[in-house]
Amino acid sequence: MIKYALGVDYGTESGRAVLISLADGTEAATAVCQYRHGVMDQSLPDGTPLDSEWALQHPADYLEVLEQTIPNVLAESGIKPEQVVGLGIAFTACTMLPTDAQGTALCFKPELANRPHAWVKLWKHHAAQDEANRLNACALERGETWLARYGGKISAEWLIPKIWQILNEDPEIYAAAGRFIEATDWVIWQLTGVETRNSCTAGYKGIYWDKQSGYPTPDFFRSLDPRLERVVEEKLSRNILPLGSRAGGLTPQMAARLGLLPGTAVAVGNVDAHAALPACGVTAPGKLVMAMGTSICHTLLSSELHVVPGMCGVVEDGILPGYYGYEAGQSAVGDIFAWFVEHAVPARTHAEAAAAGKEIHAYLEEKASALRPGESGLLALDWWNGNRSVLVDTDLTGLMLGYTLLTEPHEVYRALIEATAFGTRTIIDNFTDHGVAVDELYACGGLPEKNRLLMQIYADVTGRTIHLSASKQTPALGAAMFGAVAAGAGAGGYDTIEAAARSMAHLADEVFRPIPDHVARYEQLYQQYRILHDYFGRGANDVMKVLKELKADAR
Amino acid sequence: MIKYALGVDYGTESGRAVLISLADGTEAATAVCQYRHGVMDQSLPDGTPLDSEWALQHPADYLEVLEQTIPNVLAESGIKPEQVVGLGIAFTACTMLPTDAQGTALCFKPELANRPHAWVKLWKHHAAQDEANRLNACALERGETWLARYGGKISAEWLIPKIWQILNEDPEIYAAAGRFIEATDWVIWQLTGVETRNSCTAGYKGIYWDKQSGYPTPDFFRSLDPRLERVVEEKLSRNILPLGSRAGGLTPQMAARLGLLPGTAVAVGNVDAHAALPACGVTAPGKLVMAMGTSICHTLLSSELHVVPGMCGVVEDGILPGYYGYEAGQSAVGDIFAWFVEHAVPARTHAEAAAAGKEIHAYLEEKASALRPGESGLLALDWWNGNRSVLVDTDLTGLMLGYTLLTEPHEVYRALIEATAFGTRTIIDNFTDHGVAVDELYACGGLPEKNRLLMQIYADVTGRTIHLSASKQTPALGAAMFGAVAAGAGAGGYDTIEAAARSMAHLADEVFRPIPDHVARYEQLYQQYRILHDYFGRGANDVMKVLKELKADAR
Repeated sequence: MIKYALGVDYGTESGRAVLISLADGTEAATAVCQYRHGVMDQSLPDGTPLDSEWALQHPADYLEVLEQTIPNVLAESGIKPEQVVGLGIAFTACTMLPTDAQGTALCFKPELANRPHAWVKLWKHHAAQDEANRLNACALERGETWLARYGGKISAEWLIPKIWQILNEDPEIYAAAGRFIEATDWVIWQLTGVETRNSCTAGYKGIYWDKQSGYPTPDFFRSLDPRLERVVEEKLSRNILPLGSRAGGLTPQMAARLGLLPGTAVAVGNVDAHAALPACGVTAPGKLVMAMGTSICHTLLSSELHVVPGMCGVVEDGILPGYYGYEAGQSAVGDIFAWFVEHAVPARTHAEAAAAGKEIHAYLEEKASALRPGESGLLALDWWNGNRSVLVDTDLTGLMLGYTLLTEPHEVYRALIEATAFGTRTIIDNFTDHGVAVDELYACGGLPEKNRLLMQIYADVTGRTIHLSASKQTPALGAAMFGAVAAGAGAGGYDTIEAAARSMAHLADEVFRPIPDHVARYEQLYQQYRILHDYFGRGANDVMKVLKELKADAR
Repeated sequence: MIKYALGVDYGTESGRAVLISLADGTEAATAVCQYRHGVMDQSLPDGTPLDSEWALQHPADYLEVLEQTIPNVLAESGIKPEQVVGLGIAFTACTMLPTDAQGTALCFKPELANRPHAWVKLWKHHAAQDEANRLNACALERGETWLARYGGKISAEWLIPKIWQILNEDPEIYAAAGRFIEATDWVIWQLTGVETRNSCTAGYKGIYWDKQSGYPTPDFFRSLDPRLERVVEEKLSRNILPLGSRAGGLTPQMAARLGLLPGTAVAVGNVDAHAALPACGVTAPGKLVMAMGTSICHTLLSSELHVVPGMCGVVEDGILPGYYGYEAGQSAVGDIFAWFVEHAVPARTHAEAAAAGKEIHAYLEEKASALRPGESGLLALDWWNGNRSVLVDTDLTGLMLGYTLLTEPHEVYRALIEATAFGTRTIIDNFTDHGVAVDELYACGGLPEKNRLLMQIYADVTGRTIHLSASKQTPALGAAMFGAVAAGAGAGGYDTIEAAARSMAHLADEVFRPIPDHVARYEQLYQQYRILHDYFGRGANDVMKVLKELKADAR
């Protein structure tokens, strides 16, 4: 009897369950559930308005995803509950919520349901920028050693700024919160009845290091705000479990709601981009995984700890047990191409695409493919949404250079692709310059299958071979693999994530290899990119920040 | 009996005659004639193919303009030939042709009609760049003092490179040419039967200075090419007449063809942008005239000679007798907005404009008008067609900085307008920094009437009041004014261009005055523009040239 594991991937707009064979990683069935309340950025369900920069979610939607999709994939596949040995989830992060000591979300309590701070703060809730700025200034002033592990800056999207915002703006909610917890850990708590915290979100989003060092010190928290001094022991947890750990078994009630067996192994929570790494078959250092979509998240393993400036973070056991997991990222990639098509591609080009029977991106890709490297005469800085790695600066903006009266839309499109490739190349060079090897690339996510030109350009610009995940659902596949490890070999799963990856992870046949002539040409363009990158990004010319200030002042 | 003068303006695609009252400058009638052969950039009339970068014209088209339009304006207005006391023309430049010693265009000779070099080379014939480069290198090496008067560089569009190209590529045509002559002077020769040369084109396009210094020396020409040593005495003329001079009277034959009286005064030839200066009522120093269209030509008078780096040229009597005339320019202005609308404005914005019942430029202008200075967050370098003044570098390219995922087309449109205004401001600062005062601005041409936002931005960016010519035909009006001066007061015309301007030139009621708050904001943006301008334009970062080389190499 073939055994299966369930992987559930919680995205920004919907959740998706995939039922996967432990024999070979094939997908038996998949089901998607849109969040009933979506992203709440205008008002609460009762109409209470929200300020700008807010982004909340409804935790009931997360449970609905489980109840809708899991029975569906079982029914569709005909697979029996006893064949399902484990379950894992992957989530956006830092997506966090306040609960009481028993794990009940505070927004579920009728008396608190009209309080915005009682709800889930989605990863892209950006209203804690003030708190993040003050936290970074304080950490820098005190010489906190952990700051370097986050590339020198804690993001406004992460856990501590979000908690501090709650304290500042609604101290009653702060007081009522027995726990502040990542949504990924909260869902696992609902499934198992056991509170756990995973090493990935604790490390990358919560400024947790290891059992000995733990979180920043009470002294640091007190220097931020005296009321925060005991936040760790009062509201968080020092019991952090490595990924692949068994959080517990499905509770009888939850098992009944989902159509699974009570006691089915459940893995501790995980994060989407990080779960994708073993799903690409990567279980060793030197292989950079790119989760490519609206943005790119880069993950990488190393046996050694290195401080790499400008990375998002390095966490021990943060991606796979036994390794230091490194994360870096580009804050806009697919988003830039989407902006371009919507805001800067003329009607004529849309009409040409329609006449050719092609979707506009596909049409632009085809025309851009006819150009040789350098032929557009254009060079861009890919900072339409700021720069995450390696400059960690949201105030940087996009640049396009080389326009003439003959510049065509497909030339600009190619220059934008190239700029994002140069951004990835910069991240790779930054890792290798600081002792973290990058030998090969692995890609997953929506972009690789959509745009072959982009993949070839990334191979040419980085000078490295790119392997593609065979799965279109790598975060869910990775989550299922961790579910199999939580079950263990004795229950028909696997004892290690490496063993799971050997059987379950597959690569596409197609491989993108660098074309030597292109590599040489792009090397010249990349050198020019780096000059501009450092000139505008490292303080020699602060025009982008000046423009942002003038813009803010003009409004 | 009211007296009239005729002004004929020869453009790139058509010629236009305007009949103007000498009493008050009002237009009695106007008529346009498209050139039958247009711009010949693919082949000669007999099908002989042309290389790229070539741009020729047919001299018969210039005569047809006269024969079509002058009888028309007389008939339409009912004005009698005896009321027309003078005629002047304004032309593109350097637009030149080879003729025999009697003034017959070589291309009119059947045995030479299939030889491309026998035809008129239009101003935008760009195939003499090699000759221009070699001329500039040679002049620089020899320390030729005249080079500084042309901003340090002779353009490939000008007379000597074009002559040298003929010599290099078709020495028989060079040998057969009794004259190389500007088209503006050739047309006057046809009208009067007398060969004359005007101080404007000789000075700005022919490297002529004054009666004493003349042209570059035979020694210089020999160092270019021994065959050129005697080019001035053999093919040009040292008899250069100041503007407003009477070239002669209409020949009886020509008078009969045009319906005018024989002996009607004809002024020496002139150039369109330069004729516009007195037509704006400008007859004194300190008033910069901007002829604004696809590009901008800036003209300015001074009583003193100053060497201004990066100007197009300074010529004694080159614009008005008695003054040093300065010229500078921006190689693309309206052309950039046209490129933007065609290549980068999305279908959505066109649809919005159509729904609002507005032309697309007018719609973008309206939306851009709602922004305050700096509110777009964007800053551009206006080098879509290189930079004429003050950098004199055709290899520079356009730059846009400040893009975000929220950047809208009307914001980019405004940033493009602002960039061209910063370009004009740079030219003004360059004049004033080198001793040539600029107190007020005067605008004429197609752009001012089309785009009021643009005019206000120019006033705000330059901190100067802008007056607008009341005439839509300033080059033709200026030409007519010089025709009136050629006739003289005794014949019912005027004795000086100043007197003509007092009666005939009028300004629009509308004046654009700088708005103090905008001036202060734009000062901050302009400082940023200048930093980028110098960084990319003066050698600190040669990325634009590197990209052009890579582009050329990729093709």
